[in-house]
Amino acid sequence: MTDLIVFRYGHRLLRDERVTTHCCLVARAFGCKKIIIHGMEDPILIKTVQSISDRFGGTFKIEFTENWKPVLQQLKQQKYTLVHLTMYGQLIQKAQKKLKKTKKIAIIIGSQKVPSDMYTLSDYNVSVTNQPHSEISALAVVLDRLQDSTKIKFKKAKIKIIPTEKGKQVKIQK
Amino acid sequence: MTDLIVFRYGHRLLRDERVTTHCCLVARAFGCKKIIIHGMEDPILIKTVQSISDRFGGTFKIEFTENWKPVLQQLKQQKYTLVHLTMYGQLIQKAQKKLKKTKKIAIIIGSQKVPSDMYTLSDYNVSVTNQPHSEISALAVVLDRLQDSTKIKFKKAKIKIIPTEKGKQVKIQK
Repeated sequence: MTDLIVFRYGHRLLRDERVTTHCCLVARAFGCKKIIIHGMEDPILIKTVQSISDRFGGTFKIEFTENWKPVLQQLKQQKYTLVHLTMYGQLIQKAQKKLKKTKKIAIIIGSQKVPSDMYTLSDYNVSVTNQPHSEISALAVVLDRLQDSTKIKFKKAKIKIIPTEKGKQVKIQK
Repeated sequence: MTDLIVFRYGHRLLRDERVTTHCCLVARAFGCKKIIIHGMEDPILIKTVQSISDRFGGTFKIEFTENWKPVLQQLKQQKYTLVHLTMYGQLIQKAQKKLKKTKKIAIIIGSQKVPSDMYTLSDYNVSVTNQPHSEISALAVVLDRLQDSTKIKFKKAKIKIIPTEKGKQVKIQK
């Protein structure tokens, strides 16, 4: 599997809490090992995501930073390919062939408008549809296209959903 | 192209505004003709989405209803296949072959917990990963898998993004 990290730029306490929570859960569900959030540490967010991980398993991590550039530069040094999702970028349909061969990827998603050097620092600027929509949806579509999500394992899950055509089937692990 | 509608269950004023806005924009970007929102009419939401459509084109519509069941029953009568997105459903990887052959689809996404008869009324209950994440991401992944988004046209767009590897290229139509 690809080594995947998400970097969320510009998280604002309260205002972005729900949207950033969705970003975290998408990153986790699609097998990213962690999300790095640019902004002040947000205890409610950490608690919400941790509670999901405790029940549904896996080793997903959340980190916070108040300095975005050094963190991205460090990821580059660690051989991560930086993929910035923006509606101005080249289409994912065009970029995905190369990205699927890439072993370490950090996907950057904005909340507020990102600084212009984000475009130059990134190795790829990638778009999903070139229309305005949502960083949550762009992240999910890109992660879905880069790998086979059915192969992701969530270790030590207490709750496991059994896919079913009608109703709910849940397996509680003892 | 498939005739696509999104039905958003349980929109709450203020609390869900931002997430429902993202749902609307995803539906629009992926070529759905409208979203029907179950909840009180939300003027701020309408204004935000309308402003995007005015600039980026297309004929996307928003409707509101306070009675979810009659609306879904009516869609069924109009030969729409109801596809309810839920983390408990069968995987999209399994359902998509049949769904890709379906001409009229209404995709149902929840906000609050949905009533249990949503599962029986729907023709399909479909999951993206069987993990908890976001209705925005589930919607986007399913729409991305059902059709080729590069073929969607947005008529009368005043602004058109030209996909580019670095920076921003925007074409303003006169």
